[in-house]
Amino acid sequence: METRVSARRLSVLLGPRVAGAPAYGWLADGIRRLVADGRLLHGTRLPSERELVTALGVSRTTVTRAYGVLRERGYASAVRGSGTVVQVPGGPVAGGGEPLELSALQPSGEDVIDLTCAAPAATPGLNRAYEWAVERMPSFIAGAGYFPLGVPELREAIATRYAERGVPTDPDQIIVTTGALAGLAAIFRATLHRADPVVVESPTYPNSLRALQHAGARVVGAPLVTEAIDDVAGVIRRSGVRMMVAMPDFHNPTGAVWSDEERARIARKWRSSGVTGVVDETMSDIWLDRPIDARPMAGHAPDCVTVGSASKTFWGGLRIGWIRAPHALSGAIARARLSMDLGAPVLEQLVVARLLRTQRELSAESRQRITDSRRVLLGLAERCPGWQVDAPAGGLSLWWHLPTESSTALVTAAERRGVLLAPGSLFAVDGRGLERWIRTPYALDEMTLRRAADAIAEAWSEVGMRPGAVRSH
Amino acid sequence: METRVSARRLSVLLGPRVAGAPAYGWLADGIRRLVADGRLLHGTRLPSERELVTALGVSRTTVTRAYGVLRERGYASAVRGSGTVVQVPGGPVAGGGEPLELSALQPSGEDVIDLTCAAPAATPGLNRAYEWAVERMPSFIAGAGYFPLGVPELREAIATRYAERGVPTDPDQIIVTTGALAGLAAIFRATLHRADPVVVESPTYPNSLRALQHAGARVVGAPLVTEAIDDVAGVIRRSGVRMMVAMPDFHNPTGAVWSDEERARIARKWRSSGVTGVVDETMSDIWLDRPIDARPMAGHAPDCVTVGSASKTFWGGLRIGWIRAPHALSGAIARARLSMDLGAPVLEQLVVARLLRTQRELSAESRQRITDSRRVLLGLAERCPGWQVDAPAGGLSLWWHLPTESSTALVTAAERRGVLLAPGSLFAVDGRGLERWIRTPYALDEMTLRRAADAIAEAWSEVGMRPGAVRSH
Repeated sequence: METRVSARRLSVLLGPRVAGAPAYGWLADGIRRLVADGRLLHGTRLPSERELVTALGVSRTTVTRAYGVLRERGYASAVRGSGTVVQVPGGPVAGGGEPLELSALQPSGEDVIDLTCAAPAATPGLNRAYEWAVERMPSFIAGAGYFPLGVPELREAIATRYAERGVPTDPDQIIVTTGALAGLAAIFRATLHRADPVVVESPTYPNSLRALQHAGARVVGAPLVTEAIDDVAGVIRRSGVRMMVAMPDFHNPTGAVWSDEERARIARKWRSSGVTGVVDETMSDIWLDRPIDARPMAGHAPDCVTVGSASKTFWGGLRIGWIRAPHALSGAIARARLSMDLGAPVLEQLVVARLLRTQRELSAESRQRITDSRRVLLGLAERCPGWQVDAPAGGLSLWWHLPTESSTALVTAAERRGVLLAPGSLFAVDGRGLERWIRTPYALDEMTLRRAADAIAEAWSEVGMRPGAVRSH
Repeated sequence: METRVSARRLSVLLGPRVAGAPAYGWLADGIRRLVADGRLLHGTRLPSERELVTALGVSRTTVTRAYGVLRERGYASAVRGSGTVVQVPGGPVAGGGEPLELSALQPSGEDVIDLTCAAPAATPGLNRAYEWAVERMPSFIAGAGYFPLGVPELREAIATRYAERGVPTDPDQIIVTTGALAGLAAIFRATLHRADPVVVESPTYPNSLRALQHAGARVVGAPLVTEAIDDVAGVIRRSGVRMMVAMPDFHNPTGAVWSDEERARIARKWRSSGVTGVVDETMSDIWLDRPIDARPMAGHAPDCVTVGSASKTFWGGLRIGWIRAPHALSGAIARARLSMDLGAPVLEQLVVARLLRTQRELSAESRQRITDSRRVLLGLAERCPGWQVDAPAGGLSLWWHLPTESSTALVTAAERRGVLLAPGSLFAVDGRGLERWIRTPYALDEMTLRRAADAIAEAWSEVGMRPGAVRSH
């Protein structure tokens, strides 16, 4: 399939011409930035020189020269019969993958669509933030480069973001980590003893589960707060629990959001039972239909520990997350963290500080892209008889209820068609059951997800209703 | 104190003029790179325009224009009475610090010299590698950005480096981590059970000790292999040991290097006792007088696990390290690692891959700088009566034997004079003793270490020989 960008569209993307600079430089640089930001993809055919001359009102020499510069720098190539085609220096790269499973340790083949992960592409403007950060590096590379708690300007930017969300925060409460999972691992190491019981909702995010198990915790499953809060309270009361790990904002995998009433009640329960609340806010920014109107959990439970991440909002390849800890715990967590690594890289911290200051949250463009992708997968409801979903207002995945116990069979059938899915059991606290559920993340682009949806629907027609599958109630 | 760079020196640093480019652009860009690489420091006074005109053989207009560009971009400012002075955009930054102690969690004051860490400044050329890597990012940011085992080109570059050192290595054996300590933590998590006995030499690197303790290991101290190899073998035999963590290349803190005979004997002992050898090669590249002529430990003990790091060779602020594991262990270590974090950032991995390919090892310039710094601290032998040291052929610290049990008192007295040191006891396996020893890292620049040496000599004259201090044998 050939992608092309029209001269008119390119002219809109480029924006107004910068006065003063030579026109060819402005044009070449503009196209380079669009490639860098992922808005012109590898293989996209650029307009002919003649078309661009008309659309931009520049001379033919200008366009010829700009295309020449782009070819020289590896951002375009001349293809016989197709004119000039966008190239990404170094070539395109297959998507990575949040490694929910060991299969993710193996690189995927080229045609495989990996839906075992829920990791979106980078925010537009990321490359500009990288360039800005490289310009800032000279003031850092004369030093040793170790910032075990984080570069001060990032800790401040994160604290400011919490304050904007209604939770006044001292930069001293912030510890920068190499991602939310690294934050959780440090918190668990600092606060848990061997065999301490820890409550999590089931289903839950498998990487948190694994981190808890490696920390030696005894994981106690509870139902979802949004479905059976009385039962959750009961589990906390009965099991002498030390900690609860929760995801009140667009829970992974269900997408559920706790109401203010639910937050207040769980916060009271934590306090009265002496339970440390650990709140994973990785998805908080990924609202699609409307922002979350409930207060952040730290507003209800000032003693809870929060982890956040730049991975979903900006990009997973930055590997920057953070911990917001109450003062009473921050020293212990910082010490535990120093037994696991000595800090996050300086440059990425500057990039995230910049993005938090200039862009603050998920960009409108990313939000639109994710919303479009969600629409494609919601279409599975019509194509797969009996599938039901509570359409989430945000987050990055749909959690489907299947009419039969066929999750594992579906995963196998989809894999034969080139789509990798994680079975429902992966999200179960005990690693078993949830055979009537499947998660479909919608973090990838619309076009890829169309192909994925076709494959899933086909796979379902093969396995969903075969004899032997148990019918749902 | 005012620093200045002469017109002649600047002309040497700039190198030959690039043909074709406008002279003012070449001059401005050259100075900017020298600042970026830390070779012109913040506050350095540049030559007068007239001096530079003579030294470079360019026109006055060229110099005026270049200085103007530098001022505009924040790399210089005009100071009344001092002419043009180098600025680092964003301002200078105080040295970071490998956090050996909790004191390192607090930012140091401006005038404090932190010798609790052994972390040198960045390699020249780091900024160019950052710029190169940013240009490569477009091919990555369209993807999810997760590489749990590492970006393929870095894994290959690291494997090639091992092969060059005489240890053929498959890229599949390499796991990229956020530093050597993160590598050790993953290895410990994958291979140790609670209360497993693990042998380490004493003195040893405190961060490894802490990682072992957090992993639940029972740490068993042994003497140094280079001093009492029979006793080390005895400890391994007697204690039912599961693992030994060793640093055969420029041991931290002593700087000792194991000979090939010592390596072969310890490797045999590991094999015959079923002990997993874990080898920390963080310092391997930091030879000063001559390269290490012994083979890497993995050549003697193919089943050992090795960790390495870009921190000492290139820069600590990159936060990139790696594990080289035998095939039999690589899967388990990769899985354990995924409970701690999901991978290192993409950009830093590209930077290190580039530096490994183009520069391979410690630059001659860094080696000279560190050698000059070592000379300054070796001078303490003459200024502090009774101090003895085995001058190491590499690594980043001197391990002094004191004539009295006064390490802790010396640390306190030095701190009052603005120099932070770690007491000998910090390097002891049981956290006690070693009161006759002090480590002085020489990673900082010569000028700073001159001031540090003055303070240490003064502190010693106060505490070293006071009544009550126990004389050495």
